[in-house]
Amino acid sequence: MSNPTLVEVIRGARVESGHTGAVSVADAAGKRVFTLGDVETPVYPRSAVKALQALVMVESGAADQFGFGAEELALACASHGGEEGHISVVARMLARAGLDGNALKCGVHWPIYQPAAQALARSGGTAAAIHNNCSGKHTGFLCAACAMSADRGSYIEASHPVQREVKAVLENLSGIAIPDAARAVDGCSVPTWAVPLANLAHAFARFGSGQTSPERAKAAQRLRVACAEKPWHVAGTGRFCTELMTRFGARVFVKSGAEGMCCAALPELGFGIALKCDDGAGRAAEVMMAATLARLLQSEGDRALLARFVRAPLRNWNGIAVGEIRPTAVL
Amino acid sequence: MSNPTLVEVIRGARVESGHTGAVSVADAAGKRVFTLGDVETPVYPRSAVKALQALVMVESGAADQFGFGAEELALACASHGGEEGHISVVARMLARAGLDGNALKCGVHWPIYQPAAQALARSGGTAAAIHNNCSGKHTGFLCAACAMSADRGSYIEASHPVQREVKAVLENLSGIAIPDAARAVDGCSVPTWAVPLANLAHAFARFGSGQTSPERAKAAQRLRVACAEKPWHVAGTGRFCTELMTRFGARVFVKSGAEGMCCAALPELGFGIALKCDDGAGRAAEVMMAATLARLLQSEGDRALLARFVRAPLRNWNGIAVGEIRPTAVL
Repeated sequence: MSNPTLVEVIRGARVESGHTGAVSVADAAGKRVFTLGDVETPVYPRSAVKALQALVMVESGAADQFGFGAEELALACASHGGEEGHISVVARMLARAGLDGNALKCGVHWPIYQPAAQALARSGGTAAAIHNNCSGKHTGFLCAACAMSADRGSYIEASHPVQREVKAVLENLSGIAIPDAARAVDGCSVPTWAVPLANLAHAFARFGSGQTSPERAKAAQRLRVACAEKPWHVAGTGRFCTELMTRFGARVFVKSGAEGMCCAALPELGFGIALKCDDGAGRAAEVMMAATLARLLQSEGDRALLARFVRAPLRNWNGIAVGEIRPTAVL
Repeated sequence: MSNPTLVEVIRGARVESGHTGAVSVADAAGKRVFTLGDVETPVYPRSAVKALQALVMVESGAADQFGFGAEELALACASHGGEEGHISVVARMLARAGLDGNALKCGVHWPIYQPAAQALARSGGTAAAIHNNCSGKHTGFLCAACAMSADRGSYIEASHPVQREVKAVLENLSGIAIPDAARAVDGCSVPTWAVPLANLAHAFARFGSGQTSPERAKAAQRLRVACAEKPWHVAGTGRFCTELMTRFGARVFVKSGAEGMCCAALPELGFGIALKCDDGAGRAAEVMMAATLARLLQSEGDRALLARFVRAPLRNWNGIAVGEIRPTAVL
């Protein structure tokens, strides 16, 4: 790894662990605004591009056809915690399309929000595909397949019209042709396409500023407004993306992904951000994102809102402050 | 970080994430057998030295006084999953000392083994200090305090006779004086003392080979034999340390710790191993340890036992093979 150390984990008087990474901030023309580390090597964006994947649901007409409001649109962009309120919205979306949880091909895991997992167990329930953090996105794909009159059983395949359209959207917004060799299988079994951070930042600048086709700009705005209105539906209780979007509303769209990915759009500045922590740590990606936002949003009020995410206190099981996670000087 | 990349996470045709780290292998005289990266800067060993901390329980006479067998000794060295069988042994240990779970100062968390957490919730229970993965170690400290006629309410303080003795054992086996400034607070609130990996490897070589005082050698052997006999009690179902010690028995003692720490002793070779993944990732520390063991244990049979830990397949929620975690060429 030749990327710089961007985040340090402090315990007592020492650096206990460190995280290297790369950060790209670009405008809607693709111009580099701020760069740290290697932003040219393609990386798998994973769930950080769920909002771009959800464009297909809106553009296909599915969102209108099934009467989706802000909660449903936010869930289509979500890595949700499997909380009761998340599951009920996904179930409602599936029902509107005449489907149920059996149509989901994302695989099964227990709710990632531990109190939700405990509540599920306490009620005698067990994990199902609908609890998978990607079930909202998969429901979006299924609804798009319905609107496109495409097969609903193979919607996770790279050759399916929905996934082909997802790739086309990604290519269009990021401004590059993505070769087939850049494809891998995501945790929830859909394709994930490797794209350089610089191009992902460009894509999110366009997603946030609407500098794309009028139809795509409208769909992007609809998703951003929905997430700003219902940030809890994008992640859940106590989660980074939810907390940030609750504080900043429509001014900051932010979405994390597996393996240390995080992307954001700042409509008022016209900037997009894409970053990855090299080792895949979400805790570090969050600090990298918060610190990058603090560089760009320089008002005292904005910085105060970001402070606890830029330097995150580390507490142990007794609540004792044992250290902190913080950005290094380069960031 | 100037340490080399030792582990790569592969997805599809690409390296998705990478982990740097340092590895020290030493013999009981402190001679370096194999070294990668910086093994001189002190690191917090965290739970990787639980077996050294447990020496105090044995040497204080507590293990004899309370009639502890292999299960109890293994639990004192454990980062357990909070499974039913772990909790019952800790409760038995506390009862033998006339105590109960209220004496534990490790803090509360739900069982880290998810099926155990779900079973607890399903039964209407809730998390308590006894479910903390460190509850066995804390019980060992409490029992040592009883045997030493020391205060039982302050056993987690650095000034307490038990913690002073823990530090003395660490200094004795690792062959260095540890300054007070090297102290930080661990996740379970006891002191953790920063020690260079080279010295930790030396300490584990002596722990494994018995090249120390006869009394300490006997206590160390008793703990090693107990862990080899009851490896499930040291971690739990499906866990790395349990799996390795189940396969290798008394030939390999291995214990992981938070923030990417892992230590091991190989009595038959007289070697100790200490390693840390710089970013704190347990998944990478496990591959680093398995690959280091595969360098040292060169028989075909031993390598076959290690194979699935050296190159760990990566499967998604549908069980699809999406990549692997593997050592780089330097390791």
